[in-house]
Amino acid sequence: MAKSAFPPGPDLQAGDTVARCDSHSKVTGLARFAADEYPEGLLFAGVKRALVPHGLLRTLNSARTLQEPGVVAVLTARDISGSNRQGIIHKDQPVLIEDRVRHRGDALALVLAESRESLEKGLDLIEARIDPLPGVFDPEEALKEDAPKIHEKGNLLCHALIEKGSAEKALESCDVVVEDVFAVPFQDHAFLETQNGIAQMGADGGVTLTVSTQAPFRDRFEIAHALGLDVGAIRVVSPYLGGGFGGKDGATVQCFLALAALHSKGRPVKMWWSREESFLAGYKRHAARMRFRLGARKDGTFEALSAIFHFDAGPYAHLSVEVMELGMEHAAGPYRIPHTHLEGYCVYTNNPIGGAMRGFGITQATFGIERMVDLLAARLGIDPLELRLKNAVRRGDLNGAGVALGHSTGIIPCLEVLRSHPLWVSRHEWKAQAGLFTKRGTGIAAVSNAIGYGRGLPDAASAKVELKSDGRFLIYSGVPDMGQGNAAAYVQIAGEILCQTAGTIEIVQPDTALSLPSGSSSASRTVFTFGNAMIKVCESIRKRLLIWACQFLLVDDVATLVLLPGRIRHAPSGREIPLRLLAQFFSPQDRTFVESYVMPVARDAPDTGKEFPLGFPHTIFSYGAHLVRVEVDVLTGKANVLDYVAVTDGGRILNPQGFEQQIHGGVAQGLGYALMEEILLSEGRILNPDFTTYLIPSTMDVPDIHSDAIQTTEKEGPFGMKGVGEIGTLGPLPAVSAAVEDAVGHRLNQSPLTPPRILEVIRT
Amino acid sequence: MAKSAFPPGPDLQAGDTVARCDSHSKVTGLARFAADEYPEGLLFAGVKRALVPHGLLRTLNSARTLQEPGVVAVLTARDISGSNRQGIIHKDQPVLIEDRVRHRGDALALVLAESRESLEKGLDLIEARIDPLPGVFDPEEALKEDAPKIHEKGNLLCHALIEKGSAEKALESCDVVVEDVFAVPFQDHAFLETQNGIAQMGADGGVTLTVSTQAPFRDRFEIAHALGLDVGAIRVVSPYLGGGFGGKDGATVQCFLALAALHSKGRPVKMWWSREESFLAGYKRHAARMRFRLGARKDGTFEALSAIFHFDAGPYAHLSVEVMELGMEHAAGPYRIPHTHLEGYCVYTNNPIGGAMRGFGITQATFGIERMVDLLAARLGIDPLELRLKNAVRRGDLNGAGVALGHSTGIIPCLEVLRSHPLWVSRHEWKAQAGLFTKRGTGIAAVSNAIGYGRGLPDAASAKVELKSDGRFLIYSGVPDMGQGNAAAYVQIAGEILCQTAGTIEIVQPDTALSLPSGSSSASRTVFTFGNAMIKVCESIRKRLLIWACQFLLVDDVATLVLLPGRIRHAPSGREIPLRLLAQFFSPQDRTFVESYVMPVARDAPDTGKEFPLGFPHTIFSYGAHLVRVEVDVLTGKANVLDYVAVTDGGRILNPQGFEQQIHGGVAQGLGYALMEEILLSEGRILNPDFTTYLIPSTMDVPDIHSDAIQTTEKEGPFGMKGVGEIGTLGPLPAVSAAVEDAVGHRLNQSPLTPPRILEVIRT
Repeated sequence: MAKSAFPPGPDLQAGDTVARCDSHSKVTGLARFAADEYPEGLLFAGVKRALVPHGLLRTLNSARTLQEPGVVAVLTARDISGSNRQGIIHKDQPVLIEDRVRHRGDALALVLAESRESLEKGLDLIEARIDPLPGVFDPEEALKEDAPKIHEKGNLLCHALIEKGSAEKALESCDVVVEDVFAVPFQDHAFLETQNGIAQMGADGGVTLTVSTQAPFRDRFEIAHALGLDVGAIRVVSPYLGGGFGGKDGATVQCFLALAALHSKGRPVKMWWSREESFLAGYKRHAARMRFRLGARKDGTFEALSAIFHFDAGPYAHLSVEVMELGMEHAAGPYRIPHTHLEGYCVYTNNPIGGAMRGFGITQATFGIERMVDLLAARLGIDPLELRLKNAVRRGDLNGAGVALGHSTGIIPCLEVLRSHPLWVSRHEWKAQAGLFTKRGTGIAAVSNAIGYGRGLPDAASAKVELKSDGRFLIYSGVPDMGQGNAAAYVQIAGEILCQTAGTIEIVQPDTALSLPSGSSSASRTVFTFGNAMIKVCESIRKRLLIWACQFLLVDDVATLVLLPGRIRHAPSGREIPLRLLAQFFSPQDRTFVESYVMPVARDAPDTGKEFPLGFPHTIFSYGAHLVRVEVDVLTGKANVLDYVAVTDGGRILNPQGFEQQIHGGVAQGLGYALMEEILLSEGRILNPDFTTYLIPSTMDVPDIHSDAIQTTEKEGPFGMKGVGEIGTLGPLPAVSAAVEDAVGHRLNQSPLTPPRILEVIRT
Repeated sequence: MAKSAFPPGPDLQAGDTVARCDSHSKVTGLARFAADEYPEGLLFAGVKRALVPHGLLRTLNSARTLQEPGVVAVLTARDISGSNRQGIIHKDQPVLIEDRVRHRGDALALVLAESRESLEKGLDLIEARIDPLPGVFDPEEALKEDAPKIHEKGNLLCHALIEKGSAEKALESCDVVVEDVFAVPFQDHAFLETQNGIAQMGADGGVTLTVSTQAPFRDRFEIAHALGLDVGAIRVVSPYLGGGFGGKDGATVQCFLALAALHSKGRPVKMWWSREESFLAGYKRHAARMRFRLGARKDGTFEALSAIFHFDAGPYAHLSVEVMELGMEHAAGPYRIPHTHLEGYCVYTNNPIGGAMRGFGITQATFGIERMVDLLAARLGIDPLELRLKNAVRRGDLNGAGVALGHSTGIIPCLEVLRSHPLWVSRHEWKAQAGLFTKRGTGIAAVSNAIGYGRGLPDAASAKVELKSDGRFLIYSGVPDMGQGNAAAYVQIAGEILCQTAGTIEIVQPDTALSLPSGSSSASRTVFTFGNAMIKVCESIRKRLLIWACQFLLVDDVATLVLLPGRIRHAPSGREIPLRLLAQFFSPQDRTFVESYVMPVARDAPDTGKEFPLGFPHTIFSYGAHLVRVEVDVLTGKANVLDYVAVTDGGRILNPQGFEQQIHGGVAQGLGYALMEEILLSEGRILNPDFTTYLIPSTMDVPDIHSDAIQTTEKEGPFGMKGVGEIGTLGPLPAVSAAVEDAVGHRLNQSPLTPPRILEVIRT
């Protein structure tokens, strides 16, 4: 691992497990989340939801609401001076409905009230007449000519294509071709802290929001565009998030809050969606249907792949196009496949809104490609792990999208760890020892996950660090920490380079008035991109402080000075100047340092991707090989996960514990996706909008997860690392599906693998 | 010349003559100097001078002063809580005399008054009884055992030695040895704006000074030490100076002003030395006596040099040691001399205080060595130019101090320009054509001048530049512009790298509250050191702005953006973002950039210098070859300079006009030193303390000076340049002396070459 030239601080060394800087405050309850903010004099804001999947808003009567004691204001689309449209890339989502309702969560009116109770009453009293229109709830149905049109331009949001070689022709000449269809449902992010925030207008007319958000800097533009405000008049503060997982990447409460603040006469306004509202109106991982055909030679060499996706975008674009396209980019898995035809249809429906979620389309695609590899292995009688190894990409190969892999590429070593793993070696013996009414199976999956935004969007970050007057350092983070621990990583990077101790480095969470634009907390990019900027700024600080110390220690040669915890030492003489003394000679501004980093983009981008305005292709990937052992209760159909092994190539590891936590968390969330999490819909209505009916894994459902790492060195990564925030979610569904098939002898291509579904295949 | 990668701005290109940013304001009188400040409610401060060269202060009675209307306060040493000592390196100079008076300019008491008139009266009414002590006014006399002791430790301030090889032994075996003695007098800086400033205490107890100073950041330490204040409580603002030349490098009015501000009940205080007071109390170029012995082979190859210096420090150290040592370091000239013995005695006397002045010891030493080369040339019958060429250093040689010359070394090409110069080629013919009662002669000199502080002191600068909200740039200079034009150079550097136009780049002069410590305006270092920091900060800004623009233009590849005047352009699409718009997304702090530069020091410093605590050795030198044609009026003894040619190696030229102005100014000041400038002393009393008796060259005395340049490329220098602020002063004295000798046939080793002195040698 790359080390700085100076002796490390005692407790923040890169590569060591370091206690998270936020652990104490979070464990003791001292950490403040947006939801904890109850400023004096606040008003509560809430929205009236349509609760109709498709229709035309005819009348909206708020007369009775306004008579309700405690109700302060009712705002409708007419109160909005801006575009009244939000959406990260495609701005097609009204903040408040003008005429057409497109899903049950659409907001009709915003109510401000003195208390939660009067808010509830006020919302109940709004009378909305909506003339229902026929709805459409399946993307393939929505593409039919006679389907109800949800938007004027029709229901096809995007048709995208990745084409390399001649897949159709190659499939015809393959020795063997396997084909299958997969379906995945909507998944909820199920974060602890639901969407919420507060907002207040200042004396200068500016609006300050404190929001649980993954993209505070982008939020300013969303709000400004929707409400017709000046971007500079909007300040967004993003404290620690109680979970995000992509569900807070984009406007949720933001535009409502800013609108409320414009009409609250200077009083602060709070909006906090209930769990049910979060289910109803929040973004979801997309439901999708995928048709795969994989062709190979007899010896197992992959020749051609065709994959056709139908992504259910719900009624508004949000990031649906980008999610589907990232899935398509990963649809060939971490394999060499000379001919690929990857085609995607992203379609509007009257279902909930599809959006970003950890894995971002790759989760869906990986289910398909990995199960296809298993199917091919079975057909050819080749061990599925050996088949993967045979076709796995090496550095220098072209990936399925035609991009040359010039960065660290560690899928083969990951698979090799599994090959010799006791759980793999003993799988047949272990399977044979299954007890009464149980069946055992082992499944594997090979996964890859792009790091960063890819081409078209600048993947940039600007890290800002202040030497405070007391000699401590203060990091101004530019990307939110939604729980993944990036704040701790930044502190560790600063500690390593500045040779300081944990107690002397503080970090503040993003605030558009203090931090610098550094993109969103997403795309497995935060420690990679902002971390690289941190390295640059800390190196700058170190150099600068040594130069400054020269001037006060009257030393002519910077190289004779060493930055040590709390002080700078002239090594030859032992003379020292404390950092707190040095700091006093400079203004706070002059002690504040900024450096920026931009992630490299593919310069030799192939012309394989069509209709990809943004994000294609990527060049840096993390890799992993997962193994799961499942025991199926043949009486109930319940698949119990007994063991899980995740071997990851995330480059060099900055903090082993932080790394492991990300893998554990990702696998746990992936197991929920594999086994139980499914938004049940009926005509666009969520049938299980709470945690008594929408199940997520509890600690009792998650096995001990064994995380192992292949430490490749990613030269572009900070200290050689790559992002691992998402990759853990990719393996569980295909691996569990394979393990269940291994156990019960039947394929299950519709996720999640709930007991009824398993029971059904067992009984057929 | 090194060019930035982008198309240059139309009017600030490096290498082009660019109008000085301060020219308009100075020509129109709008520029404000410290002397222009007359804040409302100000008090005038002045000091009572001892007017006794050596003595003991017995009583000091200010009773009558305090009764004088308009007198506000009389302060003495007893009112000072600090050390009451100033001095840049050696703190041996009292701010106000406690007991011993050491020269006529010593300050006894500080008076504050409502008007200049009441101040004058008040000063006159102070009754000081000083018991005279025998004085000593010659450094060699002062070293005798029975000489009056000026300081307790004796009169030897410093004895320094540079020893390389075995000079004494080598001199014994030389084919030829020449020997001579030289003497130079004190010289006054004669700046237009005499020492002055204002000071005021703020509500927080801090003191802000606006002073005509070359070293605002160091001033804070001088004041803090002397008065017992906290450095952080002192702010020094340094507007454009009306000349400095070294005479404002160190405390002049600073401690008096700060002391006055502590006792003025919040009122501003102004102190402005009259011309006579400036002569009396200001620092001077050192008088010196120098004994040289130069040995060579018959073919002219230099073999050994012995030079012994006696520098007259006056009563306080100030920078005397450092000045003498820099002279010693240059005493072997730009020549290869294998054996050198350079010995210096820096001695206290009761004369005026010796200090820094343009040329800094080198001016004195160059007189000696250059005339020795001429003497040797005459003795050997070798052309003096050819003898210089034969022995001139080349890159890679060891210089006289034993330091390997690793940087650009252009003395030989400079000399070669002279060799073929018409004025040199035609010198014999021209001499023969002298008219009645005139004699003609041509003289040359080869010079070198170190750049920067040398070892021991950090030669560092931190440049700060802000992108303002209107899209313009603001430079916070850290080193004063005393007229040399460094501010214009910084603007040009910013314009070149940032590709902006002159009207969009502003510069503020140093202010310790806004700028960053960047050393003093001295040592031919300002454009070199601060300019290198400017290059770094401008490169940083360019990179940063392009990254930021990426984020607003949604461009993924920084390389496709170009910084243009007032805007950033996406070259492929032509889309642009104005800088003023970009600026609005960032706080002033985030739009303010700082970078630091430290000049390299000799890492292989030879062990030749003894008793050199600071500054030895240097590694980067500018070079020059000067030629002068003089016509002597044999009736009056007046030497008229008819032509002057200065060929300079100052590296690549940033601004040809600025370069030429520095050479012209240096030569003019050097001609004054050669021909007329001499502080006449009698028992420590200056006999010519004004411009009617102390003559400096007028425009009528200065010929057209022809400046030519050998543009070597100094890799360490900004855009390849080296400093030329001082080198012009070095040539005139030896060259004029040689020309006069050529004309009249007699050597004159006592400068300046006034008509009486010339007449005296003509008549002998």
